[in-house]
Amino acid sequence: MRVEELRLLLGRVRDGQIDTSAAVEALSAALREQPFADLGFAKVDHHRSIRQGFPEVVLGLGKTPDQIAKIAVQIVERGNPLLVTRADEAAAIAVKRVIDDAQYHEFARCITVTREVVRGKGTIALCSAGTADLPIAEEAAVTAELLGNTVERMYDVGVAGIHRVLAHRAQLESARVVIVVAGMEGALPSVVAGMVSVPVIGVPTSVGYGASFGGIAALLGMLNSCANSVSVVNIDNGYGAGCIASMINHL
Amino acid sequence: MRVEELRLLLGRVRDGQIDTSAAVEALSAALREQPFADLGFAKVDHHRSIRQGFPEVVLGLGKTPDQIAKIAVQIVERGNPLLVTRADEAAAIAVKRVIDDAQYHEFARCITVTREVVRGKGTIALCSAGTADLPIAEEAAVTAELLGNTVERMYDVGVAGIHRVLAHRAQLESARVVIVVAGMEGALPSVVAGMVSVPVIGVPTSVGYGASFGGIAALLGMLNSCANSVSVVNIDNGYGAGCIASMINHL
Amino acid sequence: MRVEELRLLLGRVRDGQIDTSAAVEALSAALREQPFADLGFAKVDHHRSIRQGFPEVVLGLGKTPDQIAKIAVQIVERGNPLLVTRADEAAAIAVKRVIDDAQYHEFARCITVTREVVRGKGTIALCSAGTADLPIAEEAAVTAELLGNTVERMYDVGVAGIHRVLAHRAQLESARVVIVVAGMEGALPSVVAGMVSVPVIGVPTSVGYGASFGGIAALLGMLNSCANSVSVVNIDNGYGAGCIASMINHL
Amino acid sequence: MRVEELRLLLGRVRDGQIDTSAAVEALSAALREQPFADLGFAKVDHHRSIRQGFPEVVLGLGKTPDQIAKIAVQIVERGNPLLVTRADEAAAIAVKRVIDDAQYHEFARCITVTREVVRGKGTIALCSAGTADLPIAEEAAVTAELLGNTVERMYDVGVAGIHRVLAHRAQLESARVVIVVAGMEGALPSVVAGMVSVPVIGVPTSVGYGASFGGIAALLGMLNSCANSVSVVNIDNGYGAGCIASMINHL
Amino acid sequence: MRVEELRLLLGRVRDGQIDTSAAVEALSAALREQPFADLGFAKVDHHRSIRQGFPEVVLGLGKTPDQIAKIAVQIVERGNPLLVTRADEAAAIAVKRVIDDAQYHEFARCITVTREVVRGKGTIALCSAGTADLPIAEEAAVTAELLGNTVERMYDVGVAGIHRVLAHRAQLESARVVIVVAGMEGALPSVVAGMVSVPVIGVPTSVGYGASFGGIAALLGMLNSCANSVSVVNIDNGYGAGCIASMINHL
Amino acid sequence: MRVEELRLLLGRVRDGQIDTSAAVEALSAALREQPFADLGFAKVDHHRSIRQGFPEVVLGLGKTPDQIAKIAVQIVERGNPLLVTRADEAAAIAVKRVIDDAQYHEFARCITVTREVVRGKGTIALCSAGTADLPIAEEAAVTAELLGNTVERMYDVGVAGIHRVLAHRAQLESARVVIVVAGMEGALPSVVAGMVSVPVIGVPTSVGYGASFGGIAALLGMLNSCANSVSVVNIDNGYGAGCIASMINHL
Amino acid sequence: MRVEELRLLLGRVRDGQIDTSAAVEALSAALREQPFADLGFAKVDHHRSIRQGFPEVVLGLGKTPDQIAKIAVQIVERGNPLLVTRADEAAAIAVKRVIDDAQYHEFARCITVTREVVRGKGTIALCSAGTADLPIAEEAAVTAELLGNTVERMYDVGVAGIHRVLAHRAQLESARVVIVVAGMEGALPSVVAGMVSVPVIGVPTSVGYGASFGGIAALLGMLNSCANSVSVVNIDNGYGAGCIASMINHL
Amino acid sequence: MRVEELRLLLGRVRDGQIDTSAAVEALSAALREQPFADLGFAKVDHHRSIRQGFPEVVLGLGKTPDQIAKIAVQIVERGNPLLVTRADEAAAIAVKRVIDDAQYHEFARCITVTREVVRGKGTIALCSAGTADLPIAEEAAVTAELLGNTVERMYDVGVAGIHRVLAHRAQLESARVVIVVAGMEGALPSVVAGMVSVPVIGVPTSVGYGASFGGIAALLGMLNSCANSVSVVNIDNGYGAGCIASMINHL
Repeated sequence: MRVEELRLLLGRVRDGQIDTSAAVEALSAALREQPFADLGFAKVDHHRSIRQGFPEVVLGLGKTPDQIAKIAVQIVERGNPLLVTRADEAAAIAVKRVIDDAQYHEFARCITVTREVVRGKGTIALCSAGTADLPIAEEAAVTAELLGNTVERMYDVGVAGIHRVLAHRAQLESARVVIVVAGMEGALPSVVAGMVSVPVIGVPTSVGYGASFGGIAALLGMLNSCANSVSVVNIDNGYGAGCIASMINHL
Repeated sequence: MRVEELRLLLGRVRDGQIDTSAAVEALSAALREQPFADLGFAKVDHHRSIRQGFPEVVLGLGKTPDQIAKIAVQIVERGNPLLVTRADEAAAIAVKRVIDDAQYHEFARCITVTREVVRGKGTIALCSAGTADLPIAEEAAVTAELLGNTVERMYDVGVAGIHRVLAHRAQLESARVVIVVAGMEGALPSVVAGMVSVPVIGVPTSVGYGASFGGIAALLGMLNSCANSVSVVNIDNGYGAGCIASMINHL
Repeated sequence: MRVEELRLLLGRVRDGQIDTSAAVEALSAALREQPFADLGFAKVDHHRSIRQGFPEVVLGLGKTPDQIAKIAVQIVERGNPLLVTRADEAAAIAVKRVIDDAQYHEFARCITVTREVVRGKGTIALCSAGTADLPIAEEAAVTAELLGNTVERMYDVGVAGIHRVLAHRAQLESARVVIVVAGMEGALPSVVAGMVSVPVIGVPTSVGYGASFGGIAALLGMLNSCANSVSVVNIDNGYGAGCIASMINHL
Repeated sequence: MRVEELRLLLGRVRDGQIDTSAAVEALSAALREQPFADLGFAKVDHHRSIRQGFPEVVLGLGKTPDQIAKIAVQIVERGNPLLVTRADEAAAIAVKRVIDDAQYHEFARCITVTREVVRGKGTIALCSAGTADLPIAEEAAVTAELLGNTVERMYDVGVAGIHRVLAHRAQLESARVVIVVAGMEGALPSVVAGMVSVPVIGVPTSVGYGASFGGIAALLGMLNSCANSVSVVNIDNGYGAGCIASMINHL
Repeated sequence: MRVEELRLLLGRVRDGQIDTSAAVEALSAALREQPFADLGFAKVDHHRSIRQGFPEVVLGLGKTPDQIAKIAVQIVERGNPLLVTRADEAAAIAVKRVIDDAQYHEFARCITVTREVVRGKGTIALCSAGTADLPIAEEAAVTAELLGNTVERMYDVGVAGIHRVLAHRAQLESARVVIVVAGMEGALPSVVAGMVSVPVIGVPTSVGYGASFGGIAALLGMLNSCANSVSVVNIDNGYGAGCIASMINHL
Repeated sequence: MRVEELRLLLGRVRDGQIDTSAAVEALSAALREQPFADLGFAKVDHHRSIRQGFPEVVLGLGKTPDQIAKIAVQIVERGNPLLVTRADEAAAIAVKRVIDDAQYHEFARCITVTREVVRGKGTIALCSAGTADLPIAEEAAVTAELLGNTVERMYDVGVAGIHRVLAHRAQLESARVVIVVAGMEGALPSVVAGMVSVPVIGVPTSVGYGASFGGIAALLGMLNSCANSVSVVNIDNGYGAGCIASMINHL
Repeated sequence: MRVEELRLLLGRVRDGQIDTSAAVEALSAALREQPFADLGFAKVDHHRSIRQGFPEVVLGLGKTPDQIAKIAVQIVERGNPLLVTRADEAAAIAVKRVIDDAQYHEFARCITVTREVVRGKGTIALCSAGTADLPIAEEAAVTAELLGNTVERMYDVGVAGIHRVLAHRAQLESARVVIVVAGMEGALPSVVAGMVSVPVIGVPTSVGYGASFGGIAALLGMLNSCANSVSVVNIDNGYGAGCIASMINHL
Repeated sequence: MRVEELRLLLGRVRDGQIDTSAAVEALSAALREQPFADLGFAKVDHHRSIRQGFPEVVLGLGKTPDQIAKIAVQIVERGNPLLVTRADEAAAIAVKRVIDDAQYHEFARCITVTREVVRGKGTIALCSAGTADLPIAEEAAVTAELLGNTVERMYDVGVAGIHRVLAHRAQLESARVVIVVAGMEGALPSVVAGMVSVPVIGVPTSVGYGASFGGIAALLGMLNSCANSVSVVNIDNGYGAGCIASMINHL
């Protein structure tokens, strides 16, 4: 119940068109009303695109193909674009069965349904340190593109061959926000942050072995960055980085 | 050496006003030239405000008062504003001795010298979960204000009394970016992120005891946020959050 | 040997109906007597339902189907209800072969045999943060129901959409104890604890990825809760939460 | 604004005693109204004793004596009892200066002001494993007593001399809830839980050295308890255990 | 109540010299009787030297000088030897005030009162890796000597100069049990264990810096020893190693 | 080369029966001689049973069946008993093919060949906390039995039903050394150590889930035991415990 | 663009053979030029063998067979030797299909193509502690041999039988650099370092179980070595050790 | 006893100049002789400069000033240079009292006595990332210089201003080995390693706060370096890095 509706209701009370106990009821109901569809195992949030600028996104991890498909339908049938992350083949098949134009991005493990959205103002630069970081980088790219952004990919530009990232200076400088995906020592965000004057979002990946501890080394590397423009998301969370970059690019 | 200088030099070579070996020398020198002042123990970066939109900031931790004062003079005498973080009383005295209008923010442990800077476009909302988180929150506030931003403080709005943060909904919704400072379980960024459609920067603090492990609990809580607009900086890094929020607010 | 039996025995000694060496023997035997059936690989505790108000529960993890079935028979043939947790299909088949009315709860991975038990006094509220937390939530629910409690389920009410849990305020306020199941940042118990005046039992789950570290993030989040009514059980220990909630609900 | 006030307001709207824009204002204000006193550095929660059965408790850690005294006055002047935990001598002096009957419990590091409260229904049993665990045990005891409970202390009953805790069987069996405080290996809650049929709240302490890692060993020991009635609070959190035990004892 | 006392009591019941309710009382009392002196803050175990071959030892850590002195008197006045570990100067002074022949071992931080005890059968070899490990080694030595053992010290024989420990082969081979104290990488127990055919007790110390993590490196090194005769005690637990070695040497 | 051989050699030098350069050679060779058979991938230690009282034991983990069989033959053909730990079915088949009387203990995952050895002097008591700890307990038992000891098994006597272990007091008191195998919170060794006056060897197991962290909780529990007679071996290292117990039982 | 090219260009500018805007272009292009081939998913570094003395090496982990084969061709067709580490059978087949003389080292999991390289000056000694450490030791050996070094292998010389490594003193003393590969407690590098006067490179392996934590114990052991000539590479990083040893051996 | 001495002895035996039992004695004594001076608390290794090319170095940590002075005298009176690391003022005074030309390096916390040593063949480059890393860098420098090396210092060249380290390319390329000292994210070694073809020794420092965890972040960053020429020493171990670099520079 928005302020205008409230004004309308009160006017009708004043004019005697509705009695007070009915108005009490209506006001109480409005306070009780749930802005989401309850599927039992999940509550699909229909107000999110109003509240937050983009619709609810589905984390595929730990959900059955059937659950994913049911949630997907709830989202798409209201005209929203769809993004399911961490989705396997089986989930993709289940969703395609109920939504014709669903697409599966095998590399990025995402299911998408594209819809018209407001375009971001500039470009998002996307760097990755090594070839093995690509799935996470692509998750970020697919997310950002679905949300209306132009993404410039710069892959395999790790710090041990510093000339590789230096070669991209111009592209980096023209971006409005930069996503840097890196495993192992996670040093790339610090170097990139020293080259640009916009926010850098670090995405540590679980790429590595031994003392990389599934991404902890990269995560700590980024959190301790000596550059002051680096903020960090969870290990392997390409999706989150894509969202935040999109938010910044839409400001 | 910028492109215009290069063009000028080459024109003079063409016109025979300068011979080639002198030009070779000049070009080589330009490549060798260091864009920083070398104090032996530190290299003060004079190009940074050009490259990154704000001048070098001094991390006071592990530097002597004397070192800090010397670096401060290098920065201020070129007309730059000054920010020294993690500075104690002794450092403040040393700086004030050489810079008249230096200010010490005891609570935030910062030394500042204010100069005219470009203003950010909107407001930065700044929430903190508990009273003990204030020093870190103030570090973020002092940083952001020095960099030209308007900061709206909302303190002691932790999640265990959820009505406190809900009471600030309007202020939060009107901000261009939100900083959330929290120790203990670090849950506040997730809740705030669900209320706004702009980027949220989480700052875990070392406030707590026992299994808070000096801020690890809060850090992990924020990294694992179920909200997709939260990125995180190092434990107790109010300064970094202030910088990133300012960058976003200047876009 | 209870006090009444002791009194009886001593009366017989006094009356010369039994001589002292026989009485010494009897008393010594009573002290030696094992209140459990020894199966070699396991000791089934027959006094537990007397001592603790509910019979021994079988942790399926690390036991063979055959071992589980043998223990199950020992428990059920004395008229006790049966609960086997962390049980797979194979264990369920083995138990059903020897106990007709055994039931397998596939989602909760539990085998149960229901028997009449004392009913709890009020309701147990059961919240879970995300769809992927359901198996653990259901383990808690099945446990609590078997032990004689009414459980009110509120699923997918995570903190990033705070209105979802706020919508259940009435249900939460009417419960005698609340179980909150959450993975990722584990923030939900703090929020719920701020809404009720009864004990809240937090169950961290291993749901998440990256820096969730198999549930450590959620565990630490709950242990550091700024609310003072939250106590915590082991990661994924829905069963333990169900037991404790039942104990509280029977007080 | 309660339902009755709403009804009153709407009646006046209907009767034309108040015009609609004034009513809109009043309703909006009610939604904005904060149920707490904002001291700038802290928000004192005046509705808490209504919402949760006991007033706001002050965590002394990280607050100045002056801040603590100001918050204390806010709480006491509304007739509430006062509890400040983790308070040092200086804080106690500051509070006593403004509140005549404030008491300092040096051992438990708590400041209290006792007021009439609803009494708990039974006794709370309180065990501690070693002499060094006493400060935390006393924090739990002081908390529970202030909240209206009778506490039975059983100190220095660690598991390496199992006869010591067995000697308290009767006292333990007659309690409505048990708090067990233990450092080092944290094994006592498991043993106690096997002796009673009521909830056991484990409080790991930071007592120990070497591989006790500041209480982690005790914490993990309790979380992994093979007994199903043990839930756990943060390391050294005697206060939390006292609150939860009191809640259970008031059910 | 021993079996003979029970036999006596029952005879008196049979003979009518005592009525059954008194006998019930007496038997119940016997079960309740505590084999320890309760000082409130501590329970001094008087049966321990019977049960375990040596009297209760006092861990000084976390106890006040006054508490230590009171416990010490309880132990010594029954003719037992005294050992207080982790004791500082103040505790020593407090104990000496009440026990004339108490001795303080400053290096080992122990207070002792020597009494006649059963001698161990052979020698205990005691190796330490570096000079900084001596306090812990001496704690082990003082403990073992008080308990009646001959200790052969071999100090500063770390593995990086392997000839140093090889030079002690004869002494090592003639011992009945070996204690090896080492910080840093904790490799010495493995090497020593390869040279002897008796049990080796490893004591990791907190000596080191950086990645020694307060003794974790040494602890893990010893736990992972490729030698099959090494068992390990807590970091810096010289006392425990002395006790176990003494037990083995008395077998 | 023993002292007698040296004496003989020098006599021949003195008598001119051998010239000095040949003697130099012989002495140098003696120093070079390797007391082991080198298989390339492994060095089988033939002097070990002389040096350490029992022959080399083979850790199956990370060796191929073929490598294990070759090492086994080297050991057995010199008349030694054989023990291969962490061996799977395939390794057992490979060994049986070349050694007729090899036995596979499926539960304990060990291959053995029994030979006459010196008998230990008393019994080894072997307790395990839960049914799932049996494989590790059996590894300890098989090891100790092969090395000539009588083992008394007491299984499923965890601390949450303290009467179970108390029922074995007599058996425990008559042992010369006790092995205690426990996962989860690892509390059993402390309790057992309080009941006996001989060394207790704790074996933490990886049994458990969630915050047991693959045995870390049990390991820390045992290392922090408040009993002073507990030493600890690696997680799941039943074999090591069996060896050490045997060494002690042979003293 | 080297200095000579620059000189040539400027001469042509001076002589009017090229106009200044073309020269500006050429100079800018030179700065932009990438010294690598961009395959989209990877940038193959063609200048590396010039810059660093050996060509780019391919980490097979996380790359598809197809990606590996494409990169391999890029490297080999310029006359470089090839090394792919962490390569499985499938990758080997893909590479062999496009490069005739590629070899697969199954044990070391490496693919190599041998080419003439500068020989190292002396020998590299390579010790391993146990049989299970061989795959990592072989990775180091294959790497060092491909890079032109003579490697002397000394396998299964762990510290628990110290005579085994002492038997290799001469070989160790004659090496120019030593690689020591060890899992479990990782003590071997300290012992070896005490025997030689050249650098020792420690390679911790993930061999072990329980508290070896996938190589952490060995890693910490080596980092804390009391010998001052030990430096360490990542867990299981035989390749890195081979490279560094080769660099040292080529000095 | 060297081979020549042995030859001499045997000749005398052959010639009857010495009888065999005396020769046996002499040979046995030689085997017993300890190549170190035993001070009780320490064994000073006199053969080390023969065995390892430089004399024993004293780690000041955990030793008393008096112990340090006694060891220092033992070393210097044989004509060796002296290095005491981690030495405080008090230790320096104690050493200067007994050794006239001892020097204290306050910044590097080292005591040195310089003596003629063999010079290294080239230069050692020494980079540090930030001003706060200087004490550790200086420890490395003092060590390397004492051992006969020329050290080129490049301080405050962290990766967030990549042009700073690029400006030192020539100096780096001309070194024979590089030491890189860095705290926080520890990324500098990777970048430097990509610029040179000689070994790089990484020294992580404990500089940083929050998630730097006392140097763990930097340590992990270096261990996971994507460059293949980086090996690592313990956190803050400047001394070790200086030794290893010197060894390499003397090859």
